[in-house]
Amino acid sequence: MNNHIVRTYGEELDQLSAEVMLMGGLAEAQVADAVEAVARRDVALAQSVIERDRKLDELERDVERKCIRLIALRQPMAADLRKTVAAMKIATSLERTGDLAKNIAKRSLVIAEAEPMSPLTRSIERMGKLVSSRLRDVLDAYKSGKLEMAMAVWSSDTEVDEHYNALFRELLTYMMGDPRTISACTHILFMAKNLERIGDHATNMAEHIHYEITGEDYVEDRPKMSTL
Amino acid sequence: MNNHIVRTYGEELDQLSAEVMLMGGLAEAQVADAVEAVARRDVALAQSVIERDRKLDELERDVERKCIRLIALRQPMAADLRKTVAAMKIATSLERTGDLAKNIAKRSLVIAEAEPMSPLTRSIERMGKLVSSRLRDVLDAYKSGKLEMAMAVWSSDTEVDEHYNALFRELLTYMMGDPRTISACTHILFMAKNLERIGDHATNMAEHIHYEITGEDYVEDRPKMSTL
Repeated sequence: MNNHIVRTYGEELDQLSAEVMLMGGLAEAQVADAVEAVARRDVALAQSVIERDRKLDELERDVERKCIRLIALRQPMAADLRKTVAAMKIATSLERTGDLAKNIAKRSLVIAEAEPMSPLTRSIERMGKLVSSRLRDVLDAYKSGKLEMAMAVWSSDTEVDEHYNALFRELLTYMMGDPRTISACTHILFMAKNLERIGDHATNMAEHIHYEITGEDYVEDRPKMSTL
Repeated sequence: MNNHIVRTYGEELDQLSAEVMLMGGLAEAQVADAVEAVARRDVALAQSVIERDRKLDELERDVERKCIRLIALRQPMAADLRKTVAAMKIATSLERTGDLAKNIAKRSLVIAEAEPMSPLTRSIERMGKLVSSRLRDVLDAYKSGKLEMAMAVWSSDTEVDEHYNALFRELLTYMMGDPRTISACTHILFMAKNLERIGDHATNMAEHIHYEITGEDYVEDRPKMSTL
């Protein structure tokens, strides 16, 4: 056996949470940088977001391997098993968040070559800041194990949806007003959709924290607005 | 202890695969019915796709619970562990596929109220048929444990991407030609994106099958076209 086996389960779990928190910090930065790249038409920043995504992919694979090894070797019960499963699921959500931020960065490269559409890219920036703060809140809740904090993120998902719906209407008006902008606007539309999906991942993570702490799936219907 | 523990691991794994195959059949039908609802403007069919999605969610939770229990109680090694992990991941991809089909069905209800755009909805139907056949192929590969069959699905993802890119251009032309169609066209754009993502899930599942059979992650870069 390797030397990990002599550690206590508590120590291994702490190491696992620390790795998930590291992923959380990276994912949050990727989202913030991606929307900043959009707003400032910053090609170098977009490129660096695209390159750094690989790190999140690697960390997710590592967290998953460790979780499966822990479950198989230590046969954790009750709270320890829940902590392990929650870590694995939150890592998956953070990896997906990174993919979505990378996609926003890629699209920013395309629209940086079109005429500036400042009202729209400012709206993306605002929505990005809101979504980043949701990620920060849910990661704080994960770190501190505070259920109310996680549930506050869960309840506030409609605010992200409202931003999405407003941006969607803004985009339609823009495209109808000047059909030459349609191509660039579809990229902004997908950026907005990606941010809305990152908001959904924050909500999912809140549900995983709920499961970790209480042992119950959170089955209540989300206070979701219809965004389609 | 419950009575499951007296079964052999092989029996439990067979039961798990059967449940994943059941999910696969449902997911494939959801995709086929969703695009048929689009093409025929069939509101009742769309409603039934939306309602049936719940079944996939329940099955995924059940597969996940069973996998974690198996790993914890039986401490499978090597091939058995890989089979268990692959089942869990394929179940997740199938649940997401169902979510995307449900979203297509919801959008079909919106565009059923607009003027018919037959060339576009026929393109969605064709792309949907292609994606459904990918799902069928990858599920056959899972059932039969045939690596070459899974890798053929993996390699053919570019065909789905080509359909997406062609549909995207078709949509831009349509919107620019008649800006009054922009709102309805954005729904068709998201339908096409959802189908492209379902194609990605088929590719992911092929990678999970590769891992199950060989024990190695499939790390080669995908033969992916740039679709954004």
